[in-house]
Amino acid sequence: MSIAIYPGSFDPLTKGHLDIITRASKIFDELTVVVSVNTSKKVMFSLEERKQMIVESVSHLANVKVEAFDGLLVDYVKTRRGAVIVKGLRALLDFEDEFRMALINRHLYADAETVFLTTSVEYAHISSSLVKEVYYFGGDISGMVPEPILKWCKIKGGK
Amino acid sequence: MSIAIYPGSFDPLTKGHLDIITRASKIFDELTVVVSVNTSKKVMFSLEERKQMIVESVSHLANVKVEAFDGLLVDYVKTRRGAVIVKGLRALLDFEDEFRMALINRHLYADAETVFLTTSVEYAHISSSLVKEVYYFGGDISGMVPEPILKWCKIKGGK
Amino acid sequence: MSIAIYPGSFDPLTKGHLDIITRASKIFDELTVVVSVNTSKKVMFSLEERKQMIVESVSHLANVKVEAFDGLLVDYVKTRRGAVIVKGLRALLDFEDEFRMALINRHLYADAETVFLTTSVEYAHISSSLVKEVYYFGGDISGMVPEPILKWCKIKGGK
Amino acid sequence: MSIAIYPGSFDPLTKGHLDIITRASKIFDELTVVVSVNTSKKVMFSLEERKQMIVESVSHLANVKVEAFDGLLVDYVKTRRGAVIVKGLRALLDFEDEFRMALINRHLYADAETVFLTTSVEYAHISSSLVKEVYYFGGDISGMVPEPILKWCKIKGGK
Amino acid sequence: MSIAIYPGSFDPLTKGHLDIITRASKIFDELTVVVSVNTSKKVMFSLEERKQMIVESVSHLANVKVEAFDGLLVDYVKTRRGAVIVKGLRALLDFEDEFRMALINRHLYADAETVFLTTSVEYAHISSSLVKEVYYFGGDISGMVPEPILKWCKIKGGK
Amino acid sequence: MSIAIYPGSFDPLTKGHLDIITRASKIFDELTVVVSVNTSKKVMFSLEERKQMIVESVSHLANVKVEAFDGLLVDYVKTRRGAVIVKGLRALLDFEDEFRMALINRHLYADAETVFLTTSVEYAHISSSLVKEVYYFGGDISGMVPEPILKWCKIKGGK
Repeated sequence: MSIAIYPGSFDPLTKGHLDIITRASKIFDELTVVVSVNTSKKVMFSLEERKQMIVESVSHLANVKVEAFDGLLVDYVKTRRGAVIVKGLRALLDFEDEFRMALINRHLYADAETVFLTTSVEYAHISSSLVKEVYYFGGDISGMVPEPILKWCKIKGGK
Repeated sequence: MSIAIYPGSFDPLTKGHLDIITRASKIFDELTVVVSVNTSKKVMFSLEERKQMIVESVSHLANVKVEAFDGLLVDYVKTRRGAVIVKGLRALLDFEDEFRMALINRHLYADAETVFLTTSVEYAHISSSLVKEVYYFGGDISGMVPEPILKWCKIKGGK
Repeated sequence: MSIAIYPGSFDPLTKGHLDIITRASKIFDELTVVVSVNTSKKVMFSLEERKQMIVESVSHLANVKVEAFDGLLVDYVKTRRGAVIVKGLRALLDFEDEFRMALINRHLYADAETVFLTTSVEYAHISSSLVKEVYYFGGDISGMVPEPILKWCKIKGGK
Repeated sequence: MSIAIYPGSFDPLTKGHLDIITRASKIFDELTVVVSVNTSKKVMFSLEERKQMIVESVSHLANVKVEAFDGLLVDYVKTRRGAVIVKGLRALLDFEDEFRMALINRHLYADAETVFLTTSVEYAHISSSLVKEVYYFGGDISGMVPEPILKWCKIKGGK
Repeated sequence: MSIAIYPGSFDPLTKGHLDIITRASKIFDELTVVVSVNTSKKVMFSLEERKQMIVESVSHLANVKVEAFDGLLVDYVKTRRGAVIVKGLRALLDFEDEFRMALINRHLYADAETVFLTTSVEYAHISSSLVKEVYYFGGDISGMVPEPILKWCKIKGGK
Repeated sequence: MSIAIYPGSFDPLTKGHLDIITRASKIFDELTVVVSVNTSKKVMFSLEERKQMIVESVSHLANVKVEAFDGLLVDYVKTRRGAVIVKGLRALLDFEDEFRMALINRHLYADAETVFLTTSVEYAHISSSLVKEVYYFGGDISGMVPEPILKWCKIKGGK
C-alpha cells in the first residue's frame, strides 16, 4: 500500500493546496495532510483551527486524513514507514526552496523521499501569504480558497 | 489617450525607479506614480514624506503625477479606467515576484494589465533596501538616489 | 499616438502570441506584427506563409497590421520613430532571453524601448516548437493555435 | 496497484537516471522505463540499443520493465490507464523544461499526471550529453554511467 | 602576494562555509574570514562568539585569520589594498543575491573585486538558517557543522 | 605563485571576455587564455585565427598568455599543477551552465577548482553568438568587441 504525507503550514489552505491534495489522493492509496507549526511567520489561524479548516475542505476525499504536528518533519516521517513526502510546485522559486528542503530531509533521514506534483496553472499565482494580504485589504478571495476556508476567514475578520 | 500608473513603496525612490518613470513618461501620455503602504516592511520615510520626495524628483517631467494610496492596487486601478500598470525589472528574481503579482492583479480585476520595462543596467543592482543598508553604515548613496532624495536622507540621518 | 511593434518568427503563430497581440492592441493606438527570418532554426512555414497566416488570425483587430522583415530588428525600429517593441513573457527562461535581447537592442539603438506583457497562464506552456513537435506526432493542436493557423497546418501536413 | 512510467531518450542511461529508477521502483508497485525517439538531437545509440542497455542495467529491480516507443508520450500514457509519469530533477533548468512538458502533457491528456523525484546530489552534474562529450574526448566516464552502459560505450568507441 | 577576504555573518559557521575557506586557502596566499554584524536577522550567537567559533574551526589552516567587523564591507576592503572578496555559491538563488552584492560593492568601491567558489555538492543544501531550525527542533546537526561549532551549539542549547 | 587559466571558444573574443581577462590578470600572478575547440557549434573563425585574435587583444597585459587546446579541459588543467579555472558570469543562465561544468570538472579531476568573476554590467548582454548575429545582419559591433577583433571580422566579412 502506497502512503504519502503532504506537509505545510496551510495558513490558510488555498485552492492550490486542495488541487495538490486531490491529485495526490488519486496517485497514493492513503494521504495524510500534516499541518505544522511555522516558526518564522506570524500566523492568522492557530494550529488547531488550520487542522479543522482542512478537515472540512477534504471531507469528500475518502483516503485523506489530517493531522497536526509540532516538530521536525523527518521525525514525523520516521513514524510512517514507507511514506513519501508530497509537495506542490507553482514556480521556479518554489522549486528552489522545496528542492533544498528535500535534500535536507534526505540528509536527516535517508529514507525521506519527496515527490513533487505540479499545481494547475490556474492556481499558480496563489499563496497563503497573498490570500492574507488580499483579505487584509478587503479584496475578494473567493477564487483563491475552498468554500470552508472562506467561511473561516469571514469569522476571523479582515482589516 | 494612454494612461499608466507606476506603483511601489519607494522607501526611498532610487535612480532605478526614476529611470523607469522617465522611460514610461515617454511611452504613455500620462503617468501617475502611486506610492503605497507596505505592510510587510518597516519604513524609513512616512507615506507623505515618500510622496513629497517623488514630487520633487519628477518635477521636470510634465506628464507625471504622484499620489499616495492605502489599499489594494486593483481598487486604485478600477478608478482609472483603461490605465495599465507599469513595473520595472532589474533581474530574474524581480520578474518572478512581479509576474506573480501581475497574475494576481489580473485575477482580482480582469482588466488589470501590467507592462514591464527594463531598468538600465547601470541601476540593476540598486534597490531601496540596499540604499537604506548602505546609508545606515555611512556609505555613499549619491550614485543610487536622485538629488532630492539625497537631501531628504540627510535630514532623516543614518547610523 | 502610441505605436508598438511585436516581432517574432511565428512559425506558426500560437494562441499565446494572439493573446499578446490582443492585449497590446488595447494598450497602444497602433500595433504592427513584424514577422522575421529566424537564422538559427529550420522553419515549417515560409516568411510569406507566416505573414499570411497572421493576417488571417488578426483580421478582427482593426488597429493591427502585419509586415515581413528580413534584417536586424533595430533597423526596422529606426524606421518607425517612437515605436516601442512589445514582447510576451511566459516563464523565467523567456525573460532571461528577452531581457538580454532588450539590452542588446538598446545597445544598438538607444531609443529601442521594449515593454513586456504577460501571457495568460492558460497559454504559458505553448510555444511554436511544441506545436510543431505535437503536430509532427499527430497530436491534437487545436487548443494551441488560432483557427486559421490550424487550417494552414492541415494543408502543410504532419508526420 | 500504483503504476508509473519513466520516459526519456537515455542516450545513454546515466547513474542519475538509474538513481531515479531505483527511487521510483520503491514508491510505485510497477515502473516502466519508456525509451523514446528524440527528434531534435543526433543519437549515439539506436532505439533498440538504448532499450537493451537499460534492460541490462535494471535487471536487479524486479518491478521495472523497459519499452521502446516512437510517438507522443501522452499516446503511450493513454494505453496505461492510471499510470503517472515520473521525471527526475537535477537543477533549476531541468525543472523549467520539465514543468512546461508536464503542462503540455496535461493539456493533451487531462489525466496525464507527472511526479518529480530529485536526483541524488552526487549525480546532479551528470547528463547524457556530458557523458557523450567526455567520452568523445577520451575522458573517464566510469563514475557517470552504470557498469553495463560502460561496456556498450566501449563497443561503440570514442574519438 | 595574493590576499582574499571571506565575509559573512556565520551564525553559525557550517561545513559548507568551511569547505569554501579550505578551497580559498589553497588558491590565495592569505585569507581573512571577516565576521560581520547582520542587521536584518536575529542572531543565535554574538559577534565575539561567532569569531571565536571560527577561530577554533580553522586552527588547522596556517594562512587563515579571523576578524570581526561592524560596518560596510567595502570600508573593510579599502583597508586591505589588493584583497579580493571570496563568496561561496550553493545554488541559483545564492548567485542572484551574491551577484547583486558584488555589483553594489564594485559601485561603492571600484577596486572591490569578488570571486566566487562553488561549494561541494554534499554541502549544497546546508545554510546557517537551516542549521538553526533543525537544532531548534532537536534534530541532528553533526553532519552540517564542524566539530567545534557542534560543541558551541550544545552550550547554547536548543528548543 | 598563483596561476589561472581562462578557457573558452572565443568565436570571437568580446569586450566581456576581455573584461574578465583584465580582472583575472590583476588577481593572479599568471593567466593563460585557453582557446578550445567547440564541438557543438559551427565556428566563424578557426582555432588558429581565434588564438591570434586574442594574442593581439591582450598584448598590453604582461602576465597573460594565449594557447590553443583540442581536448578535455581537465586534461589541460592536469598539466598545470595548482592552476585554477577562471570563468566569467553574466547572468543566471550562465551560472547554471558554468556551475554544472565546474562540478563535472571537479568530478573528472578532484583538484580542478573553478573561480567565477562577474563581468561588468555594461557587457552583460554581449555574447559571441550575438556578435555573430548582429554582424551577419550588418549591425554595428564596435561596442561589443575589442579593436583587433573588429579588424578580423571586417576581413572575414558579413552577410
